[in-house]
Amino acid sequence: MSGPLRAFTQTIVLGNKPLRDYLLEVVVSFNRGVDIVEIMGKGRNISRAVTLYNMVMNRLGDTVALENVEIGSLLERGRRISYIKIRLKRL
Amino acid sequence: MSGPLRAFTQTIVLGNKPLRDYLLEVVVSFNRGVDIVEIMGKGRNISRAVTLYNMVMNRLGDTVALENVEIGSLLERGRRISYIKIRLKRL
Repeated sequence: MSGPLRAFTQTIVLGNKPLRDYLLEVVVSFNRGVDIVEIMGKGRNISRAVTLYNMVMNRLGDTVALENVEIGSLLERGRRISYIKIRLKRL
Repeated sequence: MSGPLRAFTQTIVLGNKPLRDYLLEVVVSFNRGVDIVEIMGKGRNISRAVTLYNMVMNRLGDTVALENVEIGSLLERGRRISYIKIRLKRL
């Protein structure tokens, strides 16, 4: 579905919804032809992002691979918060 | 301090102590000649592990580099829990 030079990327930023909602979003994104899904968790949602990653790998492990994990901090409304970005690639 | 073929690795598993205690452990480990410090966080401590990483980089950013981030799940007392391992290397 993607052009030869660009990979379609979908970023999902975790909020307070149940993880199964985000799991569905990841599955639907890959089914729609997205090449890269990036799961982003900030602050306390970092732990949930890793749990979501494990849920995705349990369901889609043979069709999806971990491409990269980025950690760092960013300034949001004057406060420094930690984040994680987990990049998943459709195989 | 290390031999030519082996890097000394120190693993720090986060518990419930304040993050500054673990920060001190990281700093002392590198000062003692440890080459690799691995910060491990399980469950809710995953978020704290990333925050500890940011604290370390703020203090030691010019002498230490991020080598790898591993995420996954492991079985502990019959329950599956998520974890993160953040590997820091002395430059």
